[in-house]
Amino acid sequence: MARHAGFGVALLLLAFCCTPLHALWPKPEAVTVPESPKALCLSRHLQWESVGYDSDILLAGFDRYDAILRSTPLGVGDEDDVIRASHGLEGEQQEEEQQIGKHAADGQLSVSRRRKRKRCHKMRKVEVSVTSSDQSLTMETRESYSLSIDGSSHAILIQANSVFGALRAMETLSQLVRRRSVQQVEGSSGELEGFVPDDALWPGDPSTAGADDPALQRRHSTVLLVDELDTYDAPRFRYRGLLIDTARHFLPVSVIKEHLDAMAMVKLNCLHWHLTDDESFPWQLADLPELADKGAFAPEAVYTVGDIREVVEYARFRGIRVIPELDTPGHTQSWGKGFPALLTECYNEDGEPSGQLGPLNPARNETFGFVWRLLRAAAATFPDPYLHLGGDEVSHECWKSNPEVQEFMKAKGFGSDYSKLEGYFMSQVVHLAAAAGKASIVWQEAFDQGVPLPPMTRVQVWKWWKEGKQEAGQQGAVDSSSSGGGSDSNGASIALGEAASLEEGGSAASRRRALLQHPPQEGAPCSLSTGCGSAVAGEDDAWKAELKAVTAKGYDAILSSPWYLNLGTYGGQDWKRYYSVDPTDFSGTPEQKDHVLGGTACAWGEFIDAVNAINRVWPRAAAVAERLWSPAGVTDLEDASQRLADLRCRMLSRGIAAQSMGPGFCPGELTTRM
Amino acid sequence: MARHAGFGVALLLLAFCCTPLHALWPKPEAVTVPESPKALCLSRHLQWESVGYDSDILLAGFDRYDAILRSTPLGVGDEDDVIRASHGLEGEQQEEEQQIGKHAADGQLSVSRRRKRKRCHKMRKVEVSVTSSDQSLTMETRESYSLSIDGSSHAILIQANSVFGALRAMETLSQLVRRRSVQQVEGSSGELEGFVPDDALWPGDPSTAGADDPALQRRHSTVLLVDELDTYDAPRFRYRGLLIDTARHFLPVSVIKEHLDAMAMVKLNCLHWHLTDDESFPWQLADLPELADKGAFAPEAVYTVGDIREVVEYARFRGIRVIPELDTPGHTQSWGKGFPALLTECYNEDGEPSGQLGPLNPARNETFGFVWRLLRAAAATFPDPYLHLGGDEVSHECWKSNPEVQEFMKAKGFGSDYSKLEGYFMSQVVHLAAAAGKASIVWQEAFDQGVPLPPMTRVQVWKWWKEGKQEAGQQGAVDSSSSGGGSDSNGASIALGEAASLEEGGSAASRRRALLQHPPQEGAPCSLSTGCGSAVAGEDDAWKAELKAVTAKGYDAILSSPWYLNLGTYGGQDWKRYYSVDPTDFSGTPEQKDHVLGGTACAWGEFIDAVNAINRVWPRAAAVAERLWSPAGVTDLEDASQRLADLRCRMLSRGIAAQSMGPGFCPGELTTRM
Repeated sequence: MARHAGFGVALLLLAFCCTPLHALWPKPEAVTVPESPKALCLSRHLQWESVGYDSDILLAGFDRYDAILRSTPLGVGDEDDVIRASHGLEGEQQEEEQQIGKHAADGQLSVSRRRKRKRCHKMRKVEVSVTSSDQSLTMETRESYSLSIDGSSHAILIQANSVFGALRAMETLSQLVRRRSVQQVEGSSGELEGFVPDDALWPGDPSTAGADDPALQRRHSTVLLVDELDTYDAPRFRYRGLLIDTARHFLPVSVIKEHLDAMAMVKLNCLHWHLTDDESFPWQLADLPELADKGAFAPEAVYTVGDIREVVEYARFRGIRVIPELDTPGHTQSWGKGFPALLTECYNEDGEPSGQLGPLNPARNETFGFVWRLLRAAAATFPDPYLHLGGDEVSHECWKSNPEVQEFMKAKGFGSDYSKLEGYFMSQVVHLAAAAGKASIVWQEAFDQGVPLPPMTRVQVWKWWKEGKQEAGQQGAVDSSSSGGGSDSNGASIALGEAASLEEGGSAASRRRALLQHPPQEGAPCSLSTGCGSAVAGEDDAWKAELKAVTAKGYDAILSSPWYLNLGTYGGQDWKRYYSVDPTDFSGTPEQKDHVLGGTACAWGEFIDAVNAINRVWPRAAAVAERLWSPAGVTDLEDASQRLADLRCRMLSRGIAAQSMGPGFCPGELTTRM
Repeated sequence: MARHAGFGVALLLLAFCCTPLHALWPKPEAVTVPESPKALCLSRHLQWESVGYDSDILLAGFDRYDAILRSTPLGVGDEDDVIRASHGLEGEQQEEEQQIGKHAADGQLSVSRRRKRKRCHKMRKVEVSVTSSDQSLTMETRESYSLSIDGSSHAILIQANSVFGALRAMETLSQLVRRRSVQQVEGSSGELEGFVPDDALWPGDPSTAGADDPALQRRHSTVLLVDELDTYDAPRFRYRGLLIDTARHFLPVSVIKEHLDAMAMVKLNCLHWHLTDDESFPWQLADLPELADKGAFAPEAVYTVGDIREVVEYARFRGIRVIPELDTPGHTQSWGKGFPALLTECYNEDGEPSGQLGPLNPARNETFGFVWRLLRAAAATFPDPYLHLGGDEVSHECWKSNPEVQEFMKAKGFGSDYSKLEGYFMSQVVHLAAAAGKASIVWQEAFDQGVPLPPMTRVQVWKWWKEGKQEAGQQGAVDSSSSGGGSDSNGASIALGEAASLEEGGSAASRRRALLQHPPQEGAPCSLSTGCGSAVAGEDDAWKAELKAVTAKGYDAILSSPWYLNLGTYGGQDWKRYYSVDPTDFSGTPEQKDHVLGGTACAWGEFIDAVNAINRVWPRAAAVAERLWSPAGVTDLEDASQRLADLRCRMLSRGIAAQSMGPGFCPGELTTRM
């Protein structure tokens, strides 16, 4: 391109490989791009202004997103996507190719345009209007928002029903802003200021800019650009979760916060905190100190009430609920460290105690008294209206062997049907939770027992194989574990730590055993209807039958089956499988589908701790997040691939150590804290 | 156990679940444990003394391992494995169970004993005798050593032929030392000193010990314990490598150093540095700056000569060779960014240039002139006597389409056999390397072409499937990539970055494509003869035929086929498959087996960068390390599982962010830098 010296200055905005709209994750419900979008520059003195209901959450959001905008890294591809201050380019202005993106109501927006060269309008403030003072985080929290970026008003407008909708809008805004360098042609320094307003010139990287040389500084200046557009956005599902597991490994609070930051980036709104399990009990309770004293991995591997409050508050400020899971009656071996009498004594064939302990003992009132104390403590510590009560993978073998339990079965008239006993137990616990003022979420087994659960009980669906095969798979796994004692996870002896786990092939729980036996296949062909690469060929639809059954009974359901993130495979390409699942893709009435609250991506912790917690979960969890937020029509894998790569780079730039999705380099990745 | 107050003090050493011998990785060739091993305490003033050839490498090793010993974390399991200073326990001394471990010449040592309670002997120094001043790192470097820990001499004795053997010995020593707390029974503070010498009492964790309270400090004191024993150790194979790939992603020097630290821990001795590839050229050359200027991902994503020297020196101080790979004639798309004329222009069916570029152009003298400049620069920068010249996955399609190459084929009399052209190219490059003073390592394809290679050329075997199937697999992968242009990695257009890669299913190179098509199966039954879970059922022995062929021709071989670490599966349990491979398990004469120099674990970088480089490689690479160091009889998976868990914790304690191998908690993991 020819240069003509000495005649005015013009700005040339060349299209980058990916326009900022392509950087959005999850995709908004609707985006409108004006016919002639202006080039907008953020003022260095950008102001955040609340014109509706004020709150500490909103003000903290201002601070957080202001800092995020200011630290937006300089993008790659500067050779093509750069603002050049050059002489004599004005005459060429009309020659620029111009294709304008169009409104797309379904959130599908494929913009391929070259922007007109034009002057940069300065944006001075972000004006946020929250129309309700309600700050409760429930299933009914409204997260919709509108975001309007209009150059003529010099303001970015955000409107939302709740402060949480405003937070979602600010996240969207932050994803639209990009930093580009201002390459200054020698000799035009004075004239440059006419095009990029002085206070929209941002310093470049101070480490390379030569702090003492004003000319050099100016040459390395940058601008923060944002496109003119209008967005209306609202989530498709109200419950969008990530499960973390702090029992198989302890996760420091700092790691949990990093998860919460990442969740906020992709608009997930529920942290499902699998607090305790067989392997450890890290929750330090003032009333029952023996639980953590004896059940935690180490004295320092505990969550104090203060730690939990810190996590809950951190989450609340990001519009994220924290729902603790206290898994019963199975997955409770760690409880037995401090309180062995809670667990069922298993008996061998000679009628003698085997020394093994099984699930919680349902025959004793003391058991329920103990659970009551725990639920009350959980209710006092976690403000969410829901508690997760577990109820998965309960082995009946130990119960069957125990004379006291046998007597109890008789007294209750359960005959030899131990699923009735399991149902009885869960029903009791659900009612205890209700007495503590909490609604319940349970794993699907509690529903499968056929026991009537209170109507407000939510059922989380996690199995992805047909029931018959599951039994076979589990049996095989138990056989091969050769521990001999008891059965399933609860029949196994209390053998914690890496040693015990490794002897069993790396997994203590049958849920994970089953996974080891049926690892997902990588590289299988993908389709929206079949998903791509299932756990067991032909069985990946098992969850559909379960969703159908659960919703037919009028229960709300939360889907997890297709989204076991810990089962990561080579290169993390399994995100495509997660992405290709639709939670309403089962045969049922519209009313039944309305009972699907959403879903939860699960990051079980057998092989995940502080070292890899973030990179084994992110950015793959984002695939689930978009499925749960964006319109059902957002399904293009190729488009998602590009945006996911962008998202991963954005995560790095915010200090979230997400895994690479393929060869390449992220802007600023070497200077980011990781 | 009863306590009697007021009568003397005794030390009780209870056996821990894992004796320190079980913490060794890799297992030494031979360990002798005396009949009545003494309890030894390291002096706080432990001295390191060289009584043979001195060197800066040795002295730096002293400093490094002294710091490692001093920062040994307090072990878990303190309730059982603790030194209790208590009253009246002396009378019970004879009641302790006592089982003494026995010498095991094959390195198999299964010690299960309870130690006699006895007084702690203080160890004052580590005395190191290096008998040769030779510090060269080659295939002939001697790494054998003896390590003698004898309480009566108050010294730990190390003897080695080379300083590198001494480093291996110090690493072994560091793995034998463990920290235990001294739990002091109230009122016995004065008497305690008679049993743990004053200067063998180490401060505990200062953050919990109450720095101002001497009594509290003493209660939290610790000892560093080491067992009496004699070790003779030597590697089974002389070449024990780890391949890192800095072309698919840039790895900061700090990450490479972390790899080197981990390698030193498991006695790996070769860093195979896959410096360049299609995706990027991060090597900054003073003579040819365009290569990195245009071929690197970013200006900061480069290795300067200073960076490389730093890595080489860091490695040398740990007894690790650094062998750079300059892969040709394929995998060179990044070269074409600065020097497009080096690459073959591909032609379409109409006889017109397609715009695609293929492998290096073998028809031009200039190509070899350029390669010569690069090899000379590599020879000047990397001191190792070997260069790796690549030679893998060369596509012939583009060559076939190019008129200039067709002419060249005629002139050379190659007919239509393009493998002759490929052989010609590699033969030329091997001779250029020789002219630059370097011996060569090549990937197996260079051998497979049947071209006579100089006898000193080493052949690295990486394919694990039969050749026919490979072609089919690759073809399928190419078809499905739908890029249409050319074939294989070199026919693909220059499309760098995450975007391009993701469009092809996450992999730019056919090698990785094949892997995506044939992922290893997790959970398949393991056996030593068949391995456990192979890439393609029934084909995991393909490398055996290759090793047989290579060694039959008298070439030395390096095995990589079974050890593609980047193909990690759920939970990292694939280490068992790596462990169960024996590189000499092919049909051949003893002379042929002597031609197996060792092997290299490969960590290809498509999905690995600074975020996960360490946790995707470690501790799984240790499985390969032990296979290559320890005697062939060391094959017990259960024993290895336990030791690997220990190794992983030790890595954390040294700041190496290795992945968890199962549920649990490592001592000090929350306070370690990660």
